[in-house]
Amino acid sequence: MGKNIESNLANTPHFNPLNPQEFRKQPHEMVDFIPDYYQNIDSYPVLSQVQPGYLRANLPQNAPSLPESLETILEDVKNQIIPGMTHWLSPNFFAFFPSTVSTAGFLGEMLCTCFNSVGFNWIASPAATELEMLLPKSFMFQGTGGGVIQNTTSEAILVTLIAARDKALDVDGSGNLNKFVVYASDQTHSTFAKACKMVGISPRNIRLIPTTIDAGFSLSPIQLKAAVEADMENGLVPLYLCVTLGTTSTTAVDPIELLAGVAKEHGMWVHVDAAYAGSACICPEFRHHLNGVELVDSLSLSPHKWLLSGLDCWVKNPTALVKALSTNPEYLRNKQSESDSVVDFKDWKVGTGRRFKSLRLWLIFRTYGVVNLQDHIRSDVGMAKIFEDFVRSDPRFEIVVPREFGLVCFRLNPDETFGSDYTELSNQKLLDWVNSTGRVYMTHTKAGGIYVLRFAVGATLTGDNHVVAAWKLIKEGADALLKTV
Amino acid sequence: MGKNIESNLANTPHFNPLNPQEFRKQPHEMVDFIPDYYQNIDSYPVLSQVQPGYLRANLPQNAPSLPESLETILEDVKNQIIPGMTHWLSPNFFAFFPSTVSTAGFLGEMLCTCFNSVGFNWIASPAATELEMLLPKSFMFQGTGGGVIQNTTSEAILVTLIAARDKALDVDGSGNLNKFVVYASDQTHSTFAKACKMVGISPRNIRLIPTTIDAGFSLSPIQLKAAVEADMENGLVPLYLCVTLGTTSTTAVDPIELLAGVAKEHGMWVHVDAAYAGSACICPEFRHHLNGVELVDSLSLSPHKWLLSGLDCWVKNPTALVKALSTNPEYLRNKQSESDSVVDFKDWKVGTGRRFKSLRLWLIFRTYGVVNLQDHIRSDVGMAKIFEDFVRSDPRFEIVVPREFGLVCFRLNPDETFGSDYTELSNQKLLDWVNSTGRVYMTHTKAGGIYVLRFAVGATLTGDNHVVAAWKLIKEGADALLKTV
Ligand SMILES: Cc1ncc(COP(=O)(O)O)c(C=O)c1O
Ligand SMILES: Cc1ncc(COP(=O)(O)O)c(C=O)c1O
Repeated sequence: MGKNIESNLANTPHFNPLNPQEFRKQPHEMVDFIPDYYQNIDSYPVLSQVQPGYLRANLPQNAPSLPESLETILEDVKNQIIPGMTHWLSPNFFAFFPSTVSTAGFLGEMLCTCFNSVGFNWIASPAATELEMLLPKSFMFQGTGGGVIQNTTSEAILVTLIAARDKALDVDGSGNLNKFVVYASDQTHSTFAKACKMVGISPRNIRLIPTTIDAGFSLSPIQLKAAVEADMENGLVPLYLCVTLGTTSTTAVDPIELLAGVAKEHGMWVHVDAAYAGSACICPEFRHHLNGVELVDSLSLSPHKWLLSGLDCWVKNPTALVKALSTNPEYLRNKQSESDSVVDFKDWKVGTGRRFKSLRLWLIFRTYGVVNLQDHIRSDVGMAKIFEDFVRSDPRFEIVVPREFGLVCFRLNPDETFGSDYTELSNQKLLDWVNSTGRVYMTHTKAGGIYVLRFAVGATLTGDNHVVAAWKLIKEGADALLKTV
Repeated sequence: MGKNIESNLANTPHFNPLNPQEFRKQPHEMVDFIPDYYQNIDSYPVLSQVQPGYLRANLPQNAPSLPESLETILEDVKNQIIPGMTHWLSPNFFAFFPSTVSTAGFLGEMLCTCFNSVGFNWIASPAATELEMLLPKSFMFQGTGGGVIQNTTSEAILVTLIAARDKALDVDGSGNLNKFVVYASDQTHSTFAKACKMVGISPRNIRLIPTTIDAGFSLSPIQLKAAVEADMENGLVPLYLCVTLGTTSTTAVDPIELLAGVAKEHGMWVHVDAAYAGSACICPEFRHHLNGVELVDSLSLSPHKWLLSGLDCWVKNPTALVKALSTNPEYLRNKQSESDSVVDFKDWKVGTGRRFKSLRLWLIFRTYGVVNLQDHIRSDVGMAKIFEDFVRSDPRFEIVVPREFGLVCFRLNPDETFGSDYTELSNQKLLDWVNSTGRVYMTHTKAGGIYVLRFAVGATLTGDNHVVAAWKLIKEGADALLKTV
């Protein structure tokens, strides 16, 4: 039975994409390629200077029939891909918020890819689920809940919003979304309004409460209270408050404790978006920004922004999340899930499949230890402070809002005689000039109507010398601009 | 100016998490660790045999203060993590669908992590956006649209559903979701109903049309038409059809062309979920399953299931997607986006941040070439066929549905005298016994009320000998079971 089938087998030499010989060779070549890239990174324009469509002209549009060598491919990486990169890891990258990486994060990613396990439920990868559950313990948000790795802050907001919506709809019974209102400051990341739209909350019911430069662009609990009360008088129901710890524009900190106090009186779900600045709270001197965090329902944090790794979201009480997002098809049923002794992370997020991403943060914590990670945060903050001092020392510039973390918000000093449009144009011109040199990349924002230049320190390779050079370049731009205009 | 600030700088030795010496050392150690894992993988139980909570007892619950060596950490990986893994890359893994990996996919992941760029808009990483736009060309879904890498199939369904919903709401004007109906077969992955719930479609308006074993569990265009017409008579509006190419339970193929014909008559959005079987269509002999694909609005595919890499979603006409999902905050504004000459992928998906994931597929195509990738699909299908022949050669077993790809659906032959609950129990017992040996991992499903054993061939390291050994083990289980019960 099956005998003659078996005897035919041995002669079929299969293509083996995990050939051990190749695996022992090619990834080593790549490990040599990467530090070379980092060592040369200073020599590339940090903001790519290519034109739209450049790649189509330079790379084949179809997959080749036959294999190509790693050497050929790496040549294309060097000659075609790298010139089209905006180098987020360049020490001269001061744009947006940084996207940090580290040797340990890299090792964690390698291990994650090596196992390539898909941990949608406990049984599919017990270690993946359990390591992920250990992380929040060793981190900062404990208690009744737990943490789950989402892909983006947007996803964390989306799933908690759905949990809050479905919980409220259950209580309400009408099935009508039109009466639910959500709140945040006008500084909140645009992804909040996008997530609201995605779950069906009408733009009419999204309150982005105005902030002021005098209050450091922080959300005022008094204004929140007023807005909530006005809505309730109109028969609307407060649903969700998004508090930001470190806004994208200026790293403003909304006061968690006071805001949660207002929101909780009215039974709202409170989420803290700590995408960037949450990581700083591993240092005692920043920890106070989290005061009141025990009152909130969920908190999300993007460790890739400052803690050398990927994104996480912590949820205080996952019941509502699981209620909104769980599925139980036959092909995923198993004893452990049914015994209720385990957590199935697929029920805390959008997708089913998920990688063993906690390995990254785990490798980072263990390889560096808390002491070095604190040092890392402090050295970035220290460099930002150096830049701030430079700005303050030059009367042509001003600091727009006080610096709290690694971001400096500044601009060419306004000479009000020429009007605010002139100030804005001067700053725009300065920014374009700086970025066009390819030697520094910064971005801008508008806050309170003011056009602001953002200098965000935090790329892993940035040292004091890069900050000094960046400031020299900015001064050079200002010299030229103020002479010629 | 700034002089004395500068003179203080040189003395601060910063912690450097991208230290080139370390980078040249530790990742090489990891590259040696990984093939060792693959070479020993046969010796681990494929389905982890740990108990819930095992890890908490064995690993520190807090991040250490001080750094630990890579050796110490890798010891913990070996002794604590690996025993808790269900080894998806084990050649004895025949559960769910495979999660494939390859040396080239690994290289692509390394490069992606190396650059660590965040490509939310074009300017933030021109090469990342442009390489991603080249991929679909070299792949299979061309025309007016393009492809964007989502994180999961669930996300692809979610965002296209939102695009369809918002487009329909715009036309409708009432703001009322209650009249929109969505369609799929009862074999569709549970994530479809989950996504519908997420976007606010009431479970009452989700039609999961029954399929039958005689029709191979494929969605019938006639039944779809009847369902749509009945709904329209009741004043409801057909919104979205999810067609599956290769269902999760039994790899049933819904007929795209006929179904899209029905759906398009009524202006519905048609999505094809080709998560698993889509990859097979790189072989001409499977290509016909895609007939009619030019009629659909979107298609998603999880190359990690069979094409050695991560997930993608192709959209025919991204306008509705961009309309539903775009954001334009000041801090992300830039000339290129405003000139409309570029694509900003953040507007095609949930999150803002996104990695340079296209590098993986690109490395895979180039390193292996189409010829080897076809060979890879065919050798998996060939092994599944061998297993199918084994099953057919033993009268105690039966094939439940004809095999089309790499999945064999079979069961212990029912002896109807003892009733269907006895058959089900026997198959359950057999499955539990096989899995508890740790030598093979299979899963089950129910289709048409029948409890089915699933044998999915496709783990990268699986060879003919593993299929032979698995069959021997299954026979051994059947011998024991049928003797003792
Ligand atoms: C046909 C099909 N669709 C969707 C999914 C869910 O995929 P994801 O985890 O990427 O959301 C699966 C997973 O196995 C599947 O087989
Ligand atoms: C405060 C804040 N929230 C949310 C986001 C968006 O994050 P994601 O891309 O992870 O959705 C950002 C990105 O910079 C951010 O700074």
